Amino acid sequence: MARSLTSELDDLKTELLRMGTLVEEAIGRAVRSLAERDVELAREVIRGDDEVDELALAIEQRCLTLFALHQPVASDLRAVGTALKIVTDLERMADHAEDIAKVAVRLDGQPLIKPLIDLPRMARLAEEMTRESLTAYVRRDADLAYRMIARDDEVDGLYRQIFNELVEIMARQPQAVDQGIHLLFVSQYLERIADHATNVGEWVIYMVTGRREELNN
Amino acid sequence: MARSLTSELDDLKTELLRMGTLVEEAIGRAVRSLAERDVELAREVIRGDDEVDELALAIEQRCLTLFALHQPVASDLRAVGTALKIVTDLERMADHAEDIAKVAVRLDGQPLIKPLIDLPRMARLAEEMTRESLTAYVRRDADLAYRMIARDDEVDGLYRQIFNELVEIMARQPQAVDQGIHLLFVSQYLERIADHATNVGEWVIYMVTGRREELNN
Repeated sequence: MARSLTSELDDLKTELLRMGTLVEEAIGRAVRSLAERDVELAREVIRGDDEVDELALAIEQRCLTLFALHQPVASDLRAVGTALKIVTDLERMADHAEDIAKVAVRLDGQPLIKPLIDLPRMARLAEEMTRESLTAYVRRDADLAYRMIARDDEVDGLYRQIFNELVEIMARQPQAVDQGIHLLFVSQYLERIADHATNVGEWVIYMVTGRREELNN
Repeated sequence: MARSLTSELDDLKTELLRMGTLVEEAIGRAVRSLAERDVELAREVIRGDDEVDELALAIEQRCLTLFALHQPVASDLRAVGTALKIVTDLERMADHAEDIAKVAVRLDGQPLIKPLIDLPRMARLAEEMTRESLTAYVRRDADLAYRMIARDDEVDGLYRQIFNELVEIMARQPQAVDQGIHLLFVSQYLERIADHATNVGEWVIYMVTGRREELNN
């Protein structure tokens, strides 16, 4: 009880940033493990998800304790409520990175049906959106959140392009269907990671402005 | 300020149940629109998602106001924190019902590459899990939550079965690839709906016991 609300909120920010860094790394490493056929790296990503899950539980617990002990109001209340929500988005992003790593393990030993160029591009975008969404939270910067959300269109464009390309390959080569579907899933996971970053951005806008907006539906 | 915390919590339960009913209906109607090729019904499901989104925002706002005005403690605090979390799961479930309805619209006019038997079964399971998860919340019944979560294995089994069947069809019939992928997505949406019900169940267990457990990863 001795600690001030301000220092508790600072700790919360630090933990969210730490979680964000882990998530960002997991996305990049998962897609690299797939593109470079590095199954050992993929297994590391899968193992690393436990740390993210534990951090998520710790942050949730911290938020609930903060509500109870400090009874924050106005923008502090919104900051804690926002943290409680976005921690789940971060956790899901890490789950999707793990899903991608599992595809890398599953496709181990198979030659790829196409060189992976757009998937790593999508991954970089998703990583950047993740980083920007948390920077926006920490700085309480709604403008940055809006700019970050606007980048989701680029991700959706890449997704559609990859989708069409893979469907064409699968229709031509029946033996490519199983792998094609798994690569399609990978692009879907990345698209969903970007959607989660968008959710985080919407919560940051709420935290700053007090208004909840749905920008990506 | 005049209203008691108890009556506020009752209102919260009522709104969550209303949202749960809408979600459950949306799942059932979306899959029916696909199986019975009823594109008008699909469009209704798509339009109906706005009501769910508005309800989600209202419930979130109610939770944050409750924190601020009533400073709930112990199990009441957990009940409000839980509501704030599970409303997002419910919203995502409704989004996935909408995704399924969009597939029904997209496949309008195409004969189905296989009769849909397992997808409606998966949908019924997902609907039941949704209902049970909210019953568990309202009754603060952790045992029911555990039983509901155990049913997720059945959903996963159906998902794997549908996946293998569709991959086989697509590998045999190149012209079936596009539709096959969309039916695969539908089964994935249903699997994810069941995962969200599982999340709700995990939060109910936390609310009742004070312990956060991850049961489905």
